[in-house]
Amino acid sequence: MLAVVCHGKKDLRVEAQPNRALAADEVRVSVAFGGICGSDLHYYHRGAVGDFAVREPLVLGHEISGHIIELGSAVSGLTVGSKAALNPSKPCLQCHYCRDGRSNLCSNMYFLGSAGRFPHVQGGFAQQLILRQDQIIPVPATTDLLMLSVAEPLSVGLHAVKRAGNVFGKRVLVTGSGPIGDIEDHPLQVAREQIGVHYTHNVAREPTALDMYAANGGYFDIALEASGSREALQSLFSCLKRGSRIVQLGMLPPGSTPLPINLLQTRELELVGAFRAHDEFALAVQLLVAGTVDATPVLSGTFALAQAQAAFEQAGDRSRNVKLHLALT
Amino acid sequence: MLAVVCHGKKDLRVEAQPNRALAADEVRVSVAFGGICGSDLHYYHRGAVGDFAVREPLVLGHEISGHIIELGSAVSGLTVGSKAALNPSKPCLQCHYCRDGRSNLCSNMYFLGSAGRFPHVQGGFAQQLILRQDQIIPVPATTDLLMLSVAEPLSVGLHAVKRAGNVFGKRVLVTGSGPIGDIEDHPLQVAREQIGVHYTHNVAREPTALDMYAANGGYFDIALEASGSREALQSLFSCLKRGSRIVQLGMLPPGSTPLPINLLQTRELELVGAFRAHDEFALAVQLLVAGTVDATPVLSGTFALAQAQAAFEQAGDRSRNVKLHLALT
Amino acid sequence: MLAVVCHGKKDLRVEAQPNRALAADEVRVSVAFGGICGSDLHYYHRGAVGDFAVREPLVLGHEISGHIIELGSAVSGLTVGSKAALNPSKPCLQCHYCRDGRSNLCSNMYFLGSAGRFPHVQGGFAQQLILRQDQIIPVPATTDLLMLSVAEPLSVGLHAVKRAGNVFGKRVLVTGSGPIGDIEDHPLQVAREQIGVHYTHNVAREPTALDMYAANGGYFDIALEASGSREALQSLFSCLKRGSRIVQLGMLPPGSTPLPINLLQTRELELVGAFRAHDEFALAVQLLVAGTVDATPVLSGTFALAQAQAAFEQAGDRSRNVKLHLALT
Amino acid sequence: MLAVVCHGKKDLRVEAQPNRALAADEVRVSVAFGGICGSDLHYYHRGAVGDFAVREPLVLGHEISGHIIELGSAVSGLTVGSKAALNPSKPCLQCHYCRDGRSNLCSNMYFLGSAGRFPHVQGGFAQQLILRQDQIIPVPATTDLLMLSVAEPLSVGLHAVKRAGNVFGKRVLVTGSGPIGDIEDHPLQVAREQIGVHYTHNVAREPTALDMYAANGGYFDIALEASGSREALQSLFSCLKRGSRIVQLGMLPPGSTPLPINLLQTRELELVGAFRAHDEFALAVQLLVAGTVDATPVLSGTFALAQAQAAFEQAGDRSRNVKLHLALT
Repeated sequence: MLAVVCHGKKDLRVEAQPNRALAADEVRVSVAFGGICGSDLHYYHRGAVGDFAVREPLVLGHEISGHIIELGSAVSGLTVGSKAALNPSKPCLQCHYCRDGRSNLCSNMYFLGSAGRFPHVQGGFAQQLILRQDQIIPVPATTDLLMLSVAEPLSVGLHAVKRAGNVFGKRVLVTGSGPIGDIEDHPLQVAREQIGVHYTHNVAREPTALDMYAANGGYFDIALEASGSREALQSLFSCLKRGSRIVQLGMLPPGSTPLPINLLQTRELELVGAFRAHDEFALAVQLLVAGTVDATPVLSGTFALAQAQAAFEQAGDRSRNVKLHLALT
Repeated sequence: MLAVVCHGKKDLRVEAQPNRALAADEVRVSVAFGGICGSDLHYYHRGAVGDFAVREPLVLGHEISGHIIELGSAVSGLTVGSKAALNPSKPCLQCHYCRDGRSNLCSNMYFLGSAGRFPHVQGGFAQQLILRQDQIIPVPATTDLLMLSVAEPLSVGLHAVKRAGNVFGKRVLVTGSGPIGDIEDHPLQVAREQIGVHYTHNVAREPTALDMYAANGGYFDIALEASGSREALQSLFSCLKRGSRIVQLGMLPPGSTPLPINLLQTRELELVGAFRAHDEFALAVQLLVAGTVDATPVLSGTFALAQAQAAFEQAGDRSRNVKLHLALT
Repeated sequence: MLAVVCHGKKDLRVEAQPNRALAADEVRVSVAFGGICGSDLHYYHRGAVGDFAVREPLVLGHEISGHIIELGSAVSGLTVGSKAALNPSKPCLQCHYCRDGRSNLCSNMYFLGSAGRFPHVQGGFAQQLILRQDQIIPVPATTDLLMLSVAEPLSVGLHAVKRAGNVFGKRVLVTGSGPIGDIEDHPLQVAREQIGVHYTHNVAREPTALDMYAANGGYFDIALEASGSREALQSLFSCLKRGSRIVQLGMLPPGSTPLPINLLQTRELELVGAFRAHDEFALAVQLLVAGTVDATPVLSGTFALAQAQAAFEQAGDRSRNVKLHLALT
Repeated sequence: MLAVVCHGKKDLRVEAQPNRALAADEVRVSVAFGGICGSDLHYYHRGAVGDFAVREPLVLGHEISGHIIELGSAVSGLTVGSKAALNPSKPCLQCHYCRDGRSNLCSNMYFLGSAGRFPHVQGGFAQQLILRQDQIIPVPATTDLLMLSVAEPLSVGLHAVKRAGNVFGKRVLVTGSGPIGDIEDHPLQVAREQIGVHYTHNVAREPTALDMYAANGGYFDIALEASGSREALQSLFSCLKRGSRIVQLGMLPPGSTPLPINLLQTRELELVGAFRAHDEFALAVQLLVAGTVDATPVLSGTFALAQAQAAFEQAGDRSRNVKLHLALT
């Protein structure tokens, strides 16, 4: 079984991995497609994501879809051969956070392709994978598995929207249009022309673009900070009406970010974090399968497993790509 | 009619002020007591609060109680001679925020003793005062007017608690025990012995006091940042469990505050502002009148109007005083 | 100035009404179109709505749009000649409910065309009307005033959705497709083909249509009861998942409704009322002006003022009409 | 091992029960005390609770405390010999409701002493009991185990309070002071004199006692319906302010309850169910152990295991008892 393994900064290898027998509640899947995420790129380019450094060979990847190929003895409700969405989150279901309906904050989480714990949790850029049965959502045989692999990043966006509270009738500002804070025209154009965003501004070329929203005490009710850029976060405070909410889902660079907290206090703004997803993964699958959400605009190209390193090199070029995928089987 | 007028930094005068006739919906009151607030001290010591500088003579004061002495022609439900709590907030009731149940964020607020707009809104450290009828809450004749003057600062605390969301069964950390971020033992002792706080720590003398709360991913569910100290705010993030909320009600020094926003994002913390009070003023009056809240521990001394400057000088000495009052009539 | 006046059950007259001068904060408008609402029909057919009987001649109508023709001396931000959406709600802005952000529950409300207080509040099926300035929302000159008159009923629907809490990703059941609980195929067809409802059932012809949703402990997360039918409300309880919410916006017949409260208790269901609208009127105007909501499917025909009685007679025939309008000027 | 077994209506026997070996994640406890709940009384008097009839011999009881006597092989964090609070709820942790933070609504719940599923879940009025490790909360050796057995009913009350939303500064009406809707003076006296309730009314002797609260559109913000009486629930609607919430935690008699839903709709009242408890059990234990809640007033007497039937007979006499207990070991 081949997999895409990161051995450290800029050291990515396609190599064989061992396999093992299933536990009673586990399922073996073959992975069809895997999307390259910003965190995968961080592991590749820096050998780390935030404070989590690669300390042993790590199979990357967590945006995946595939087929069920073997069922553990106690698994029910799933069928060998079925197509499936594959949830990279395996929360413990026991801890305070899981029981409180916030499994994305689980204190004993296994998340695919992450160096956040040691031994690392090996990821999904592999020809085969073993998951707990509740990580598998079967889908109709007509489902496009490439499209379906977008369920995980979509779920992160959906979760951020849920963290925004009731968005009904609200004016929303989204900062960032890609995984690593680039400011490029291409993804803005995709957002505007294919995704339904009303207005876009490239603040790199128009540094004063947001000033118009600061007049009269602010314009927006909600901001989703998805760029991971300090400047983007800082620029939001003056554009928001009093009592508004900022959802921080982008991962900022390590260290502290200076913020105008006096403005937050006197305007009763709310700055809240959004991290991964909870039950929004199932919703994302449902929206993709029903065609309510069309992920086509973010599918920028697919590479064979053997071309993984080339894919990683090109994935960083945001002037041309929104998201690149690997075909694993 | 005499009043305590700030003419600029360290320039405080007790001097006569003009009077005027009432509009139909207004009420004239004599002010009995006025508590000296941190913002009053800022006007006195710096000639400004935050970015709001004294640009014309400003009567200070907004923590007041008194008697009704004259009613406008359209006023009903109030009686001349009655004791009354006096709400320093006069929101417009028309703007988007007022209509949304957030009158403390009113975009056309008149708040007593504030240089936040020009002409300034003259304050309550005066022998007489004209208020809109809805700023008056009549209280029983047996009410202690000195105690009642604490209604406004109490309402600010109550509002911050409301901003914390449901506190039922939660572990709460309060940083700060006074108006300007001092770290003194005296108010901590009052909090512990007379107010019911379970534990206190003087982080100036025990810089590592909070470390024990950072173990195992955090201890508290809610933090109320009432010190206005950057270090206090920064220290909270590691003491809080995932998904917790920080309410910022202290006013920080001007400028930006560096914060660990990556921690906020990955732990889904919530940092929200609390500013003044909305309908919590009526609740504060009710709690004080019923004796549910006993404000005695914060009443540190009362000065005659003529001794106003001495009162302001001593009010800053937090090693001995929690709050000082002026007797105005 | 002519108006449509209800003198009692089945006694509707088009007759002249007196006019008066404006107060400082008032605006005179000419009314362009008025939609006939279920409550208008109740006044016409029964001489009453719920417990509110017509006790003096009552101008009906509250779903209206028009032009500004005169401004009070203190009015600003409005222009004579401008087209405008006309909000039938005039809350007091002073009471506890208004200050709490729930002006639709105002304890001193003036709502156009209502016998809920005495003297009655005269309504909007009139050639001219005097409103408080905040009841007027100016719209672009290109706005279709017939379409705009749907803003009020749309706002009631939007408010009910807000009362449902966060609808994001939820399965929603709507019972009722018209003002008086009819069960007709025509409005169901409109809902399905023109409005975007996924599935419809005519429970009069398919009494067991909802049974499939009761399997496995319920299917829906939210129900909007818009029919005003007791049977419809009763049928919801078994179709809902545990912890779900029912929003009652339809007005039921007078008297009590037997409900399975033990099911509500053990499944922690939530049954909540929705009454008129708060700030959703402005949102409705915005959605109609922007074309986000297309009200065309509910516009079933327009009658001249002189034909008011014929319009009221036909408006009750729900097999052919969704909503009928009067052209008033 | 002896236990209190219900064989049907009025057929209660103290008899030996089989024992079995522990699974890896299980714990064997000896039960010290068990409180007799309203549902236990229903099983005894009617042979059923609501629609759940006793179809095989059922050990009753779920308000229990005890000692740990044996640990399964995979259990950690618990010590043989330790005193412990014993949570009667064993939710599956897997279903949609558990993952959503609402384990009290678990679709695959095992709740001690319940005929809600078949085979029945045997209860806690037994000398020994096997529980899953997360059902055990160890407490200090100084804890009063009789008092601790009140944790479960206390948790139900706490959960109902949580379902009431933010109670901060609200006026609350509680209807019912005991398990089966009796209207007796004794528990009212206990509530008033020992528990801190401000006012009580015996509506059996003063049928118009609540009328004073209906004036001016209602007085209370929140009502907790804990009597299980239809009349009590019906009487609440007129006593509540608009926008208020009723929490139904009492179990009403089988069948439908006629309610004034038009009032609920036009006043935007909220009627919500409360069922058992979620994480409030741990909070109840904490409050009892810390002494924040003193359960002494509800402890009306303790009977030996052999006297179980006498205890059940007397438990129904609410004129003298609030809650009776069995001493099991």
